[in-house]
Amino acid sequence: MLLKNRLFTPVPTPLLPAAQNAMAAFTAHHRTADFKALYTRVLADMKDFVGTANDVLVIASSGTGVMEGAVSNLTSPGDRVLVLTAGKFGERWRDLAKAYGCSVDVVEKPYGETFSLDEVRSKLTPETKAVYVQATESSTGVSHDVQGIAKLVRANGDTLLVVDAITGLGTTHLDVDGWGIDVIIGGSQKALMIPPGLAYCGISDRAWKRMEMAKNPRYYFDFRKERKAAAKGESAFTPATSLFAALGAALDFIRQMGSGDLAAGRKALVDNAELAAEMTRAGVKALGLKLYASSPSAALTAVTAPAGLDSGKIVKEFRESFSAVVANGQGDMKGKLFRIAHIGYYDFLDTIGILAALEHVLATVTDKPVEYGVAVRAAQEVFARARRGELEAVGARN
Amino acid sequence: MLLKNRLFTPVPTPLLPAAQNAMAAFTAHHRTADFKALYTRVLADMKDFVGTANDVLVIASSGTGVMEGAVSNLTSPGDRVLVLTAGKFGERWRDLAKAYGCSVDVVEKPYGETFSLDEVRSKLTPETKAVYVQATESSTGVSHDVQGIAKLVRANGDTLLVVDAITGLGTTHLDVDGWGIDVIIGGSQKALMIPPGLAYCGISDRAWKRMEMAKNPRYYFDFRKERKAAAKGESAFTPATSLFAALGAALDFIRQMGSGDLAAGRKALVDNAELAAEMTRAGVKALGLKLYASSPSAALTAVTAPAGLDSGKIVKEFRESFSAVVANGQGDMKGKLFRIAHIGYYDFLDTIGILAALEHVLATVTDKPVEYGVAVRAAQEVFARARRGELEAVGARN
Repeated sequence: MLLKNRLFTPVPTPLLPAAQNAMAAFTAHHRTADFKALYTRVLADMKDFVGTANDVLVIASSGTGVMEGAVSNLTSPGDRVLVLTAGKFGERWRDLAKAYGCSVDVVEKPYGETFSLDEVRSKLTPETKAVYVQATESSTGVSHDVQGIAKLVRANGDTLLVVDAITGLGTTHLDVDGWGIDVIIGGSQKALMIPPGLAYCGISDRAWKRMEMAKNPRYYFDFRKERKAAAKGESAFTPATSLFAALGAALDFIRQMGSGDLAAGRKALVDNAELAAEMTRAGVKALGLKLYASSPSAALTAVTAPAGLDSGKIVKEFRESFSAVVANGQGDMKGKLFRIAHIGYYDFLDTIGILAALEHVLATVTDKPVEYGVAVRAAQEVFARARRGELEAVGARN
Repeated sequence: MLLKNRLFTPVPTPLLPAAQNAMAAFTAHHRTADFKALYTRVLADMKDFVGTANDVLVIASSGTGVMEGAVSNLTSPGDRVLVLTAGKFGERWRDLAKAYGCSVDVVEKPYGETFSLDEVRSKLTPETKAVYVQATESSTGVSHDVQGIAKLVRANGDTLLVVDAITGLGTTHLDVDGWGIDVIIGGSQKALMIPPGLAYCGISDRAWKRMEMAKNPRYYFDFRKERKAAAKGESAFTPATSLFAALGAALDFIRQMGSGDLAAGRKALVDNAELAAEMTRAGVKALGLKLYASSPSAALTAVTAPAGLDSGKIVKEFRESFSAVVANGQGDMKGKLFRIAHIGYYDFLDTIGILAALEHVLATVTDKPVEYGVAVRAAQEVFARARRGELEAVGARN
């Protein structure tokens, strides 16, 4: 059949057409009243999207850039920090903290798992300056218990909590201020439905104070400089203007999803990911496949390949037969699992369609007979229950 | 869930993103070498898309404009013509022929049916100047036997055959020159995957000759004037430039579908519609619903609403729950059927997705229990058979 490009990867995610159009049309200079107005409006809206009363900064970089800033702005060489890792992006926190000369304590769990609160508690010390963690570990699809971790950190004196929610924002219900997250980090290429190129972070008063004492070097990612410029409706360095235009359109779309209320729109976007994820998990299990993650996130569903089958064959067949891109495992997990994302711009037809495609992929790459419709039926039943209001439990899971 | 605009109507059809981009980006003046090059290339490509060695004209109008031209250019007041009608668009041929003072013979069949070749033969006379028919009657989803009709007309002296293939082109295998179709008419808003605004027609030598004798008045739709301009790489009147840019991109996409060969791409596009239609028919029947058309086209599937249920409720539920637009019946058929189109830019995920949506719509608007997955399973089985090369019969049907 005709092939459309179908992205089901955790990054990048499908683009919102209104954002594409805004991006293509944008031509204004960045030091004008027009762009200042857009910039100021977007930064204000981003507070509602993140769900925080704190300042939110948006910087031209990948998510890793702002992760680096969350280390360089908050630490001094020799500072003791705690990294919680169970996947590729947790390891990035460890690498960043080491690069900036921190003394790094680590809670490390195997890929696919998460840490218990007891394990976190046992590694927290009075000297721990900051805790670094992911909300959702994209490499494994695992959701970590940010709320529980935040409670422990808040009871540990001045320790800061830094959460990489690049995949988590817009796919997970997070109470940033209520739980006391000090720095929360996101990226444009995820639930915001626009291309990569912008990273953002919400920063607490505690974290702003810490920056005054932190001695590590920083320049482009100096959050204080960026905040000062933002107060004047400007960016510290040349902003990625077309992506700002796209971001403005995406925030308008999310606001529409919330019937005019952006915070409600963010909730609807998370609910959407949760329902798509629940439908997908049901479909995958109905096919006799196993979920890879012990505590699966709503952002993506990582599925263990059938015994003896390289998951690369599944990924390849999705691409060749349906022009649908699903992700292989990363690092050690390559060949062992595949990942279907639910981040951002997916609807019912997408969700059902990729499950039907999975049925065909399995029938093609395995010897086991596949009963057509079985994954779709399971997903349909989840959807029907959700429509009848019987699925509150879905929301509580993440 | 999040709602995407999902068009499943016979008109307009989903837009090709590359065509949208080309259209948005186009700014050249229409009397320049650049535009002449585009214009000339598009007209040449259109011959391959239509599948004719004859000249193809592209005019800024809806399809009805060029239908009018096919009457005004080919007839004189009092000419005897034969109209074959079994739906709203067949009636338009009758209305147009009457408006231009023709003496109109008619073979008329009820909506949902088609004419037998005997009925056509019995109305052809030595005086019949032209026969007007649809390839596909969009209002009912019926495919007429153009090949059989052409054979009768070709055996009837100088009678011209004019085929409205606005819906049929790109969804039906038509051998325009081989069968001897004199005027074949299409529109941009169908299988070409671009917005409404352009209509086109391929015209045989016989028809060009007839124009020299035809006395009916015409100006904007004077095909001879348009042909003369086209020979110089121009349009007779201001062309719809951005739509030409879109058309160029669409033809490039269709060429890619044919691995560099536009005629092969047209065939692939028709095969795609046929497979989507066969999957949809199987799904609809598995749900216990009845097809409305006696000889269903690959362009759209018209489905009779369950007894006692207004099809408007089905259309409304598709729109409200899935933001999916399917068409109601037209005229007398309103409330009695709904129509799901397969024209142009649809892939596997779209086709499966709309059937899954139909399962939910039925479960919502009827009292009968619906077994989820049953329509999807039937469609999946058709798809699997097609992939195994077991469905040549699909292609032969239309």
